[in-house]
Amino acid sequence: MTTALTNPLQLAEDAQNLLFHNARTANAFTDEEVPEETVRAVYELVKNGPTEFNTTPLRLVLVRSDEARARLLPHMLDNNRDKTAAAPLIAILAADLEFHEELPRLFPYFPQAKDVFYGDPNDRAESARFNSALQIGYFVIGLRAAGLAAGPQSGFDHEGLDKEFFPDGTHTALVVMNIGKPGEDAWGPRLPRLEYDEVVTTV
Amino acid sequence: MTTALTNPLQLAEDAQNLLFHNARTANAFTDEEVPEETVRAVYELVKNGPTEFNTTPLRLVLVRSDEARARLLPHMLDNNRDKTAAAPLIAILAADLEFHEELPRLFPYFPQAKDVFYGDPNDRAESARFNSALQIGYFVIGLRAAGLAAGPQSGFDHEGLDKEFFPDGTHTALVVMNIGKPGEDAWGPRLPRLEYDEVVTTV
Repeated sequence: MTTALTNPLQLAEDAQNLLFHNARTANAFTDEEVPEETVRAVYELVKNGPTEFNTTPLRLVLVRSDEARARLLPHMLDNNRDKTAAAPLIAILAADLEFHEELPRLFPYFPQAKDVFYGDPNDRAESARFNSALQIGYFVIGLRAAGLAAGPQSGFDHEGLDKEFFPDGTHTALVVMNIGKPGEDAWGPRLPRLEYDEVVTTV
Repeated sequence: MTTALTNPLQLAEDAQNLLFHNARTANAFTDEEVPEETVRAVYELVKNGPTEFNTTPLRLVLVRSDEARARLLPHMLDNNRDKTAAAPLIAILAADLEFHEELPRLFPYFPQAKDVFYGDPNDRAESARFNSALQIGYFVIGLRAAGLAAGPQSGFDHEGLDKEFFPDGTHTALVVMNIGKPGEDAWGPRLPRLEYDEVVTTV
Protein backbone atom coordinates (compact mmCIF):
# COMPACT_ATOMS: atom_id res chain seq x y z
CA MET A 1 0.00 0.00 0.00
CA THR A 2 1.43 3.40 -0.89
CA THR A 3 1.28 6.44 1.35
CA ALA A 4 -1.17 7.95 -1.10
CA LEU A 5 -3.80 5.40 -0.15
CA THR A 6 -3.42 5.79 3.62
CA ASN A 7 -4.62 8.64 5.76
CA PRO A 8 -1.78 11.15 5.71
CA LEU A 9 -2.64 12.35 9.24
CA GLN A 10 -1.53 10.50 12.36
CA LEU A 11 -3.56 12.70 14.69
CA ALA A 12 -6.72 10.89 15.82
CA GLU A 13 -9.96 12.13 14.35
CA ASP A 14 -11.42 13.31 17.66
CA ALA A 15 -8.31 15.39 18.25
CA GLN A 16 -8.56 16.82 14.72
CA ASN A 17 -12.13 17.80 15.51
CA LEU A 18 -11.32 19.26 18.92
CA LEU A 19 -8.43 21.38 17.70
CA PHE A 20 -9.47 22.28 14.19
CA HIS A 21 -12.62 21.07 12.47
CA ASN A 22 -15.13 21.76 15.25
CA ALA A 23 -13.24 24.60 16.91
CA ARG A 24 -14.44 28.10 16.15
CA THR A 25 -13.76 31.67 17.12
CA ALA A 26 -16.39 32.38 19.76
CA ASN A 27 -18.34 35.60 20.29
CA ALA A 28 -20.38 34.35 23.26
CA PHE A 29 -19.50 32.20 26.24
CA THR A 30 -21.08 30.35 29.13
CA ASP A 31 -20.54 31.71 32.65
CA GLU A 32 -18.13 28.93 33.52
CA GLU A 33 -14.90 30.31 34.93
CA VAL A 34 -11.50 29.61 33.43
CA PRO A 35 -9.31 28.76 36.41
CA GLU A 36 -5.65 29.61 36.70
CA GLU A 37 -4.60 25.96 36.51
CA THR A 38 -6.20 25.64 33.08
CA VAL A 39 -4.23 28.57 31.73
CA ARG A 40 -1.13 27.06 33.30
CA ALA A 41 -1.79 23.67 31.68
CA VAL A 42 -2.24 25.37 28.31
CA TYR A 43 1.04 27.24 28.75
CA GLU A 44 2.88 24.06 29.71
CA LEU A 45 1.43 22.35 26.63
CA VAL A 46 2.44 24.98 24.10
CA LYS A 47 5.49 26.66 25.63
CA ASN A 48 7.95 24.64 23.55
CA GLY A 49 6.54 25.74 20.20
CA PRO A 50 9.37 27.00 17.99
CA THR A 51 10.35 30.65 17.70
CA GLU A 52 13.34 32.32 16.07
CA PHE A 53 16.39 31.90 18.34
CA ASN A 54 13.99 30.63 21.00
CA THR A 55 13.05 34.24 21.66
CA THR A 56 9.53 33.38 22.94
CA PRO A 57 8.51 37.05 23.30
CA LEU A 58 4.79 36.48 24.01
CA ARG A 59 3.53 37.68 27.38
CA LEU A 60 0.00 37.32 28.78
CA VAL A 61 -1.94 39.60 31.05
CA LEU A 62 -5.03 37.88 32.47
CA VAL A 63 -7.62 40.56 33.11
CA ARG A 64 -9.56 39.17 36.06
CA SER A 65 -10.44 41.95 38.48
CA ASP A 66 -13.38 44.28 37.94
CA GLU A 67 -10.99 47.17 38.20
CA ALA A 68 -8.74 45.84 35.43
CA ARG A 69 -11.75 45.11 33.20
CA ALA A 70 -12.89 48.67 33.70
CA ARG A 71 -9.47 49.87 32.55
CA LEU A 72 -9.55 47.61 29.49
CA LEU A 73 -13.05 47.95 28.09
CA PRO A 74 -12.93 51.61 27.03
CA HIS A 75 -10.10 50.71 24.64
CA MET A 76 -12.09 48.04 22.81
CA LEU A 77 -13.76 49.10 19.57
CA ASP A 78 -17.52 49.49 19.97
CA ASN A 79 -18.46 46.24 18.25
CA ASN A 80 -16.04 44.28 20.46
CA ARG A 81 -16.81 45.87 23.83
CA ASP A 82 -19.95 44.01 24.93
CA LYS A 83 -18.73 40.56 24.04
CA THR A 84 -15.43 41.25 25.77
CA ALA A 85 -17.24 42.50 28.88
CA ALA A 86 -19.23 39.24 28.94
CA ALA A 87 -16.29 36.86 28.51
CA PRO A 88 -15.34 34.70 31.53
CA LEU A 89 -11.66 35.45 30.94
CA ILE A 90 -9.96 38.19 28.99
CA ALA A 91 -6.27 37.91 28.14
CA ILE A 92 -4.10 40.64 26.70
CA LEU A 93 -1.54 38.93 24.46
CA ALA A 94 1.44 41.23 24.20
CA ALA A 95 4.92 41.19 22.74
CA ASP A 96 7.80 41.90 25.09
CA LEU A 97 9.89 44.43 23.18
CA GLU A 98 12.80 43.78 25.54
CA PHE A 99 12.71 40.02 25.05
CA HIS A 100 16.37 40.06 24.06
CA GLU A 101 17.35 40.54 27.71
CA GLU A 102 16.35 36.89 28.28
CA LEU A 103 18.35 35.50 25.37
CA PRO A 104 21.55 34.60 27.22
CA ARG A 105 19.35 32.26 29.23
CA LEU A 106 17.01 31.12 26.43
CA PHE A 107 19.63 30.65 23.74
CA PRO A 108 22.82 29.88 25.63
CA TYR A 109 24.64 28.56 22.54
CA PHE A 110 24.97 32.08 21.19
CA PRO A 111 24.56 34.61 23.96
CA GLN A 112 25.66 37.42 21.64
CA ALA A 113 22.37 37.03 19.74
CA LYS A 114 20.99 39.59 22.15
CA ASP A 115 23.10 42.34 20.64
CA VAL A 116 24.04 40.97 17.22
CA PHE A 117 20.51 40.26 16.02
CA TYR A 118 18.34 42.29 18.30
CA GLY A 119 20.37 45.39 19.12
CA ASP A 120 18.27 47.61 16.87
CA PRO A 121 14.92 48.49 18.48
CA ASN A 122 13.02 48.53 15.18
CA ASP A 123 14.28 45.12 14.09
CA ARG A 124 13.62 43.87 17.59
CA ALA A 125 10.02 45.11 17.57
CA GLU A 126 9.38 43.46 14.20
CA SER A 127 10.81 40.20 15.48
CA ALA A 128 8.83 40.48 18.72
CA ARG A 129 5.59 40.85 16.77
CA PHE A 130 6.38 38.02 14.40
CA ASN A 131 7.46 35.50 17.01
CA SER A 132 4.64 36.49 19.37
CA ALA A 133 2.21 35.82 16.54
CA LEU A 134 3.64 32.32 16.08
CA GLN A 135 3.12 31.78 19.80
CA ILE A 136 -0.43 33.14 19.63
CA GLY A 137 -1.08 30.50 16.98
CA TYR A 138 0.16 27.78 19.34
CA PHE A 139 -1.82 29.29 22.21
CA VAL A 140 -5.09 29.22 20.27
CA ILE A 141 -4.57 25.50 19.64
CA GLY A 142 -3.64 25.00 23.29
CA LEU A 143 -6.85 26.60 24.51
CA ARG A 144 -8.83 24.32 22.25
CA ALA A 145 -6.93 21.36 23.70
CA ALA A 146 -8.44 22.41 27.04
CA GLY A 147 -11.94 22.41 25.55
CA LEU A 148 -12.04 26.19 25.46
CA ALA A 149 -12.90 28.56 22.66
CA ALA A 150 -10.85 31.65 21.90
CA GLY A 151 -12.13 34.94 20.58
CA PRO A 152 -9.00 36.78 19.42
CA GLN A 153 -9.53 40.44 18.60
CA SER A 154 -7.31 43.10 17.11
CA GLY A 155 -10.10 45.69 17.16
CA PHE A 156 -8.99 47.95 20.00
CA ASP A 157 -7.18 51.24 20.46
CA HIS A 158 -3.66 49.83 20.50
CA GLU A 159 -1.97 53.03 21.61
CA GLY A 160 -4.50 53.66 24.38
CA LEU A 161 -4.38 50.10 25.68
CA ASP A 162 -0.58 50.04 25.66
CA LYS A 163 -0.47 53.31 27.57
CA GLU A 164 -2.91 51.96 30.15
CA PHE A 165 -1.38 48.52 30.70
CA PHE A 166 2.25 48.97 29.64
CA PRO A 167 3.09 52.56 30.55
CA ASP A 168 6.85 51.94 30.48
CA GLY A 169 6.70 51.16 26.76
CA THR A 170 8.39 47.76 26.99
CA HIS A 171 5.37 45.77 25.78
CA THR A 172 2.83 46.15 23.02
CA ALA A 173 -0.55 44.43 22.92
CA LEU A 174 -1.21 42.40 19.77
CA VAL A 175 -4.47 40.67 20.57
CA VAL A 176 -7.18 40.91 23.22
CA MET A 177 -8.52 37.40 23.54
CA ASN A 178 -11.81 36.36 25.06
CA ILE A 179 -11.62 32.86 26.49
CA GLY A 180 -14.24 30.46 27.78
CA LYS A 181 -16.63 27.66 26.98
CA PRO A 182 -18.67 28.63 23.91
CA GLY A 183 -22.20 29.77 24.76
CA GLU A 184 -25.42 30.01 22.79
CA ASP A 185 -25.08 31.40 19.28
CA ALA A 186 -21.33 31.65 19.81
CA TRP A 187 -20.69 31.87 16.09
CA GLY A 188 -22.26 32.20 12.68
CA PRO A 189 -21.59 30.13 9.56
CA ARG A 190 -17.95 29.51 8.71
CA LEU A 191 -16.35 32.06 6.47
CA PRO A 192 -14.91 30.77 3.18
CA ARG A 193 -11.26 29.79 2.86
CA LEU A 194 -8.96 29.81 -0.14
CA GLU A 195 -8.56 26.54 -1.98
CA TYR A 196 -5.33 24.60 -1.63
CA ASP A 197 -4.34 25.36 -5.19
CA GLU A 198 -4.74 29.09 -4.58
CA VAL A 199 -2.41 28.97 -1.58
CA VAL A 200 0.20 26.38 -2.53
CA THR A 201 2.36 26.36 -5.63
CA THR A 202 5.04 23.84 -6.50
CA VAL A 203 8.23 24.78 -8.29
CA MET B 1 -14.86 17.21 42.35
CA THR B 2 -13.71 20.67 41.36
CA THR B 3 -12.15 21.52 38.04
CA ALA B 4 -8.90 22.08 39.86
CA LEU B 5 -8.59 18.38 40.63
CA THR B 6 -9.28 17.13 37.11
CA ASN B 7 -6.92 17.25 34.16
CA PRO B 8 -7.54 20.65 32.59
CA LEU B 9 -6.74 19.30 29.11
CA GLN B 10 -9.27 17.38 27.02
CA LEU B 11 -6.75 16.51 24.33
CA ALA B 12 -5.63 12.89 24.66
CA GLU B 13 -2.13 12.34 25.95
CA ASP B 14 -0.83 10.71 22.76
CA ALA B 15 -2.04 13.73 20.79
CA GLN B 16 -0.36 16.08 23.29
CA ASN B 17 2.86 14.17 22.75
CA LEU B 18 2.56 14.07 18.97
CA LEU B 19 1.85 17.78 18.62
CA PHE B 20 3.79 19.29 21.48
CA HIS B 21 5.76 17.33 24.05
CA ASN B 22 7.65 15.00 21.72
CA ALA B 23 7.67 17.23 18.67
CA ARG B 24 10.89 19.11 17.98
CA THR B 25 12.39 21.41 15.41
CA ALA B 26 14.43 19.06 13.23
CA ASN B 27 17.80 19.68 11.64
CA ALA B 28 18.11 16.29 9.96
CA PHE B 29 15.60 14.10 8.13
CA THR B 30 15.20 10.64 6.68
CA ASP B 31 15.03 10.27 2.89
CA GLU B 32 11.30 9.57 2.98
CA GLU B 33 9.44 11.82 0.57
CA VAL B 34 6.66 14.16 1.65
CA PRO B 35 3.94 13.63 -0.96
CA GLU B 36 1.61 16.29 -2.22
CA GLU B 37 -1.42 14.67 -0.58
CA THR B 38 0.18 15.00 2.84
CA VAL B 39 0.71 18.73 2.39
CA ARG B 40 -2.86 18.96 1.15
CA ALA B 41 -4.18 17.09 4.20
CA VAL B 42 -2.22 19.43 6.49
CA TYR B 43 -3.66 22.45 4.71
CA GLU B 44 -7.20 21.10 4.98
CA LEU B 45 -6.64 20.48 8.69
CA VAL B 46 -5.34 23.95 9.56
CA LYS B 47 -6.91 26.21 6.96
CA ASN B 48 -9.71 27.37 9.28
CA GLY B 49 -7.38 28.72 11.96
CA PRO B 50 -8.41 32.28 12.86
CA THR B 51 -6.87 35.37 11.31
CA GLU B 52 -7.85 39.03 11.51
CA PHE B 53 -10.82 39.62 9.18
CA ASN B 54 -10.21 36.12 7.83
CA THR B 55 -7.37 37.58 5.78
CA THR B 56 -5.41 34.28 5.63
CA PRO B 57 -2.43 35.87 3.86
CA LEU B 58 -0.05 32.89 4.10
CA ARG B 59 1.11 31.36 0.81
CA LEU B 60 3.35 28.33 0.34
CA VAL B 61 5.87 27.58 -2.35
CA LEU B 62 6.95 23.94 -2.31
CA VAL B 63 10.49 23.78 -3.65
CA ARG B 64 10.63 20.34 -5.28
CA SER B 65 12.60 20.51 -8.52
CA ASP B 66 16.40 20.45 -8.59
CA GLU B 67 16.30 23.67 -10.52
CA ALA B 68 14.20 25.45 -7.86
CA ARG B 69 16.44 24.11 -5.07
CA ALA B 70 19.44 25.50 -6.92
CA ARG B 71 17.75 28.90 -7.01
CA LEU B 72 16.92 28.77 -3.29
CA LEU B 73 20.06 27.45 -1.63
CA PRO B 74 22.40 30.37 -2.36
CA HIS B 75 20.07 32.61 -0.34
CA MET B 76 20.27 30.48 2.81
CA LEU B 77 22.76 31.57 5.45
CA ASP B 78 25.83 29.32 5.56
CA ASN B 79 24.82 27.41 8.68
CA ASN B 80 21.38 26.65 7.22
CA ARG B 81 22.40 25.68 3.67
CA ASP B 82 23.47 22.05 4.05
CA LYS B 83 20.55 20.96 6.19
CA THR B 84 18.15 22.68 3.80
CA ALA B 85 19.79 20.98 0.82
CA ALA B 86 19.29 17.62 2.56
CA ALA B 87 15.62 18.09 3.51
CA PRO B 88 13.06 15.91 1.67
CA LEU B 89 10.80 18.93 1.23
CA ILE B 90 11.51 22.64 1.44
CA ALA B 91 8.64 25.11 1.68
CA ILE B 92 8.90 28.87 1.38
CA LEU B 93 6.25 30.35 3.67
CA ALA B 94 5.42 33.79 2.37
CA ALA B 95 2.98 36.58 3.09
CA ASP B 96 0.80 37.76 0.22
CA LEU B 97 1.09 41.54 0.42
CA GLU B 98 -1.95 41.86 -1.85
CA PHE B 99 -4.13 39.59 0.28
CA HIS B 100 -6.75 42.33 0.50
CA GLU B 101 -7.82 41.61 -3.06
CA GLU B 102 -9.40 38.37 -1.78
CA LEU B 103 -11.30 40.01 1.07
CA PRO B 104 -14.63 40.58 -0.69
CA ARG B 105 -14.72 36.80 -1.04
CA LEU B 106 -13.15 35.86 2.32
CA PHE B 107 -15.01 38.39 4.47
CA PRO B 108 -18.25 39.02 2.61
CA TYR B 109 -19.95 40.69 5.61
CA PHE B 110 -17.80 43.76 5.18
CA PRO B 111 -16.41 43.90 1.66
CA GLN B 112 -15.11 47.44 2.26
CA ALA B 113 -12.50 46.02 4.66
CA LYS B 114 -10.26 45.72 1.63
CA ASP B 115 -9.94 49.50 1.37
CA VAL B 116 -10.94 50.72 4.83
CA PHE B 117 -8.46 48.63 6.79
CA TYR B 118 -5.91 47.58 4.24
CA GLY B 119 -5.70 50.47 1.80
CA ASP B 120 -2.33 51.62 3.13
CA PRO B 121 0.51 49.38 1.88
CA ASN B 122 2.56 49.71 5.09
CA ASP B 123 -0.33 48.78 7.36
CA ARG B 124 -1.17 45.99 4.95
CA ALA B 125 2.36 44.59 5.03
CA GLU B 126 2.39 44.63 8.83
CA SER B 127 -0.94 42.84 8.92
CA ALA B 128 0.21 40.34 6.29
CA ARG B 129 3.26 39.44 8.38
CA PHE B 130 1.31 39.17 11.60
CA ASN B 131 -1.51 37.03 10.25
CA SER B 132 0.85 34.88 8.20
CA ALA B 133 2.80 34.20 11.40
CA LEU B 134 -0.39 33.03 13.13
CA GLN B 135 -0.95 30.70 10.19
CA ILE B 136 2.64 29.45 10.31
CA GLY B 137 1.95 28.52 13.94
CA TYR B 138 -1.08 26.49 12.87
CA PHE B 139 0.89 24.94 10.00
CA VAL B 140 3.71 23.75 12.29
CA ILE B 141 1.11 21.95 14.42
CA GLY B 142 -0.53 20.57 11.27
CA LEU B 143 2.73 19.07 10.03
CA ARG B 144 3.21 17.39 13.39
CA ALA B 145 -0.32 16.00 13.10
CA ALA B 146 0.94 14.26 9.96
CA GLY B 147 3.87 12.76 11.86
CA LEU B 148 6.29 15.18 10.26
CA ALA B 149 8.88 17.44 11.79
CA ALA B 150 9.35 21.03 10.74
CA GLY B 151 12.59 22.97 10.64
CA PRO B 152 11.51 26.61 10.30
CA GLN B 153 14.33 29.03 9.48
CA SER B 154 14.49 32.78 9.24
CA GLY B 155 18.23 32.71 8.50
CA PHE B 156 18.30 33.59 4.80
CA ASP B 157 18.86 36.62 2.61
CA HIS B 158 15.28 37.86 2.62
CA GLU B 159 15.76 40.48 -0.08
CA GLY B 160 17.64 38.08 -2.35
CA LEU B 161 15.12 35.28 -1.93
CA ASP B 162 12.17 37.60 -2.51
CA LYS B 163 13.77 38.92 -5.70
CA GLU B 164 14.39 35.37 -6.93
CA PHE B 165 11.01 33.85 -6.13
CA PHE B 166 8.67 36.86 -6.01
CA PRO B 167 10.09 39.29 -8.55
CA ASP B 168 6.83 41.23 -8.86
CA GLY B 169 7.09 42.30 -5.20
CA THR B 170 3.65 41.06 -4.17
CA HIS B 171 4.95 38.46 -1.70
CA THR B 172 7.61 38.37 0.97
CA ALA B 173 9.16 35.20 2.40
CA LEU B 174 8.95 34.91 6.18
CA VAL B 175 10.25 31.40 6.80
CA VAL B 176 12.02 28.71 4.82
CA MET B 177 10.84 25.46 6.32
CA ASN B 178 12.47 22.07 6.00
CA ILE B 179 9.92 19.29 6.29
CA GLY B 180 10.22 15.54 6.66
CA LYS B 181 10.48 12.62 9.02
CA PRO B 182 13.15 13.34 11.64
CA GLY B 183 16.42 11.53 10.95
CA GLU B 184 19.40 10.58 13.13
CA ASP B 185 20.57 13.27 15.53
CA ALA B 186 17.76 15.50 14.33
CA TRP B 187 18.01 17.70 17.41
CA GLY B 188 20.00 18.46 20.52
CA PRO B 189 18.72 18.96 24.07
CA ARG B 190 15.70 21.18 24.49
CA LEU B 191 16.42 24.84 25.04
CA PRO B 192 15.06 26.35 28.26
CA ARG B 193 11.71 28.11 28.37
CA LEU B 194 10.45 30.88 30.61
CA GLU B 195 8.44 29.82 33.64
CA TYR B 196 4.69 30.42 33.64
CA ASP B 197 5.00 33.13 36.26
CA GLU B 198 7.52 35.00 34.13
CA VAL B 199 5.16 35.03 31.16
CA VAL B 200 1.71 35.39 32.69
CA THR B 201 0.56 38.11 35.08
CA THR B 202 -2.92 38.52 36.51
CA VAL B 203 -4.48 41.91 37.13
